Amino acid sequence: MRAASYPSTGIQPINRHKISTESPIETVFERLVNLIHVIWPVNHEVAAISVASAGPLNPKTGFIYDAPNIPGWKDFPLGDKLREIFPVPIFIGNDANLAAMGEWKYGNGIDHSDLIFLTISTGIGGGIICNNALMEGHNGLAAELGHITVQPDGLVCSCGKLGHLEALASGPAIVAYVRLSLLSGQTSTLHLDKEFSAYDVALAAKTGDQLAVRAYAHAGFYLGQALASLIHIFNPSIIILGGGVAQSGALLFEPMLEKMYASVMEPSYLQDLEIVPARLGDDAGLLGALALARQKLQNS
Amino acid sequence: MRAASYPSTGIQPINRHKISTESPIETVFERLVNLIHVIWPVNHEVAAISVASAGPLNPKTGFIYDAPNIPGWKDFPLGDKLREIFPVPIFIGNDANLAAMGEWKYGNGIDHSDLIFLTISTGIGGGIICNNALMEGHNGLAAELGHITVQPDGLVCSCGKLGHLEALASGPAIVAYVRLSLLSGQTSTLHLDKEFSAYDVALAAKTGDQLAVRAYAHAGFYLGQALASLIHIFNPSIIILGGGVAQSGALLFEPMLEKMYASVMEPSYLQDLEIVPARLGDDAGLLGALALARQKLQNS
Repeated sequence: MRAASYPSTGIQPINRHKISTESPIETVFERLVNLIHVIWPVNHEVAAISVASAGPLNPKTGFIYDAPNIPGWKDFPLGDKLREIFPVPIFIGNDANLAAMGEWKYGNGIDHSDLIFLTISTGIGGGIICNNALMEGHNGLAAELGHITVQPDGLVCSCGKLGHLEALASGPAIVAYVRLSLLSGQTSTLHLDKEFSAYDVALAAKTGDQLAVRAYAHAGFYLGQALASLIHIFNPSIIILGGGVAQSGALLFEPMLEKMYASVMEPSYLQDLEIVPARLGDDAGLLGALALARQKLQNS
Repeated sequence: MRAASYPSTGIQPINRHKISTESPIETVFERLVNLIHVIWPVNHEVAAISVASAGPLNPKTGFIYDAPNIPGWKDFPLGDKLREIFPVPIFIGNDANLAAMGEWKYGNGIDHSDLIFLTISTGIGGGIICNNALMEGHNGLAAELGHITVQPDGLVCSCGKLGHLEALASGPAIVAYVRLSLLSGQTSTLHLDKEFSAYDVALAAKTGDQLAVRAYAHAGFYLGQALASLIHIFNPSIIILGGGVAQSGALLFEPMLEKMYASVMEPSYLQDLEIVPARLGDDAGLLGALALARQKLQNS
C-alpha cells in the first residue's frame, strides 16, 4: 500500500511512502494507520484523509463489503475505524472508481464530462464519470465493469458467476486461454510445465507465437463487445484503458477496436470518441483519492 | 401521435388530442404543428413546448439523427423547425428517455435517485436516471439499452449489428424464435402459414403451448442477463419495465429473474432493489415531456 500527503493545490506530494500490505506482526489496518502517521505533514494542517480501497465497498459510509485480497476486510467498517483514530473528515472510495476520478481531474480525461475508465489486470475494474460526476449508484457499488456478462453461459468468473468480462479478458483469462489450448494439443513457445503470466504471453506473441496472438485476440474481442455495449449505454466522449494487460498495445487493441466498431449501431457514437491509455499509472489511486477529497471539501 | 397541454402544476391536462402520425396529404411535421395548435390552451400563457420523439436524436439541439419509423425524419432539425414557428422555449428528448423521466417524476419511480427504465415492445429502448438526473451522454445518445450485446455473434438486430438484446428479446424476436422453431419441425398451436404477434405467442403459452413458453423463456433469459450487467454498471434502487412484451407477466419475468439472480456477483446489489412494471402506459411520453419541460424551466 502507498500513501502521500498533498498541499491544497497541485499534485506534488509533501510526503510519500510505500510499504507491503501484509506483515506477520501487524494487521493490514494497523499497517495503514502507521503509514498515515509516516506521511502526516508536520508543518501543515490536515484537511481530510481520503482512501482508495479494494472493494466492493460503500463510499457513503466507508464500509468494506468484501476485499478478497485483504485478509480480514470482509464486512469491515474501515471508515468508522479511521474516524476513531483521526480527528479529520474521512473519505473512502473504490480504487477503480477513484482511478477514473484521478484520470478525469489530473490525467487523460481532463475536461470530459462523460468518461469510461476500464482497468484490465488480474481483475477488471471500472469507473464512470457521467454528466460531470463520479457515478456511485444506490449503495456505491456502480461501475463493476468486469462483471458485465459477455457470454451467455461462459467461463466461470472470479466472482463465481458465468461469462463475465473478467472471466474472458483479464490477465488470468489470457493465461487460461493459452493453458487450455495447450491441453487440447495446440503448440506454442509457452509450455504447460512452466508458470507464465499474461505479460509472458504478450512477449511470446511479439516473437510470432500464433497461439499467444490468438489469446490476446480472444480477450480483445470480448473487451470490444463490452465497450460497444458501454458506448450504447453511456455515449461517452472518452474511454481510458489502464492496468497491465492494457499495456500490450496493438496485440489487444486491434481486435478490441475491430469488434467494437463492428458492434456499434450508429456512427454518431464514434464521431468524436477518444480511446486512450491511462496516464497516471501506479499513482492513479493516490491522485484519485486526492481528487475525491478536494471535491468533497469543496462541496462541504 | 398525441399531444396535451398542462397547467404549471399537476398532471391533469387542459387539452389533449391524438391523431394518426401519417397522412397522404400532410407531412408528419405539418401534422405535428397542427396538433400543437389544436391543444394550444386559449386562456393560458404557454411556457414551453416539449416533445418526446423517436430517435436517436440530440436532446441539446433537437436534431433527429434517424427516426426509422417516421418518413423524412433522417437528419431532421426538429428543434430548429419548431423554433421557427413557435415563440416559446422548445425542449426535445428521446421517447424512451422521457418515459423514464415520466416514471421517475409521476409514476413508479418517485423518490429514487438511481433508476433503470426498459421498454420492451417492437424494439427495446431505455432511459436511465443516475444520481437524480436523466443520463443523456456526450451527444444525447445514452441509454440505448436494446443495443447491449448479449450474444457474441448472435442474431442480426434491427440496427444491423449482431447479438444485441433487441434481436433476442423484443416482440419480433419472440415471434422469430417460434417461426424458426416451427421451420425446424417443432410443433405448436401456432402455425407458419398464419401471421402471429408476440401477444399471440403469450396467449398460446397460457393455454400450455410449450414452444410458446420456451420462446418467452428464451427472451427472458437474455433480458435477465442484460439486467444483471446493468445492475453491476449502475447499482440502481429500482428497475421499471414497460412496453407490451413486459405485460406478459410471469411467463417472461420468471426466467428473466432466474437468470438475473444467477448472474449478479454480490447480494448487496439485490438487497433493496425493486423490479416493477411501468405505471404510465400510453401517457409515458406525454408525462415525460412534461417532466422535462418543468425541469428545464426550473433550471433556467
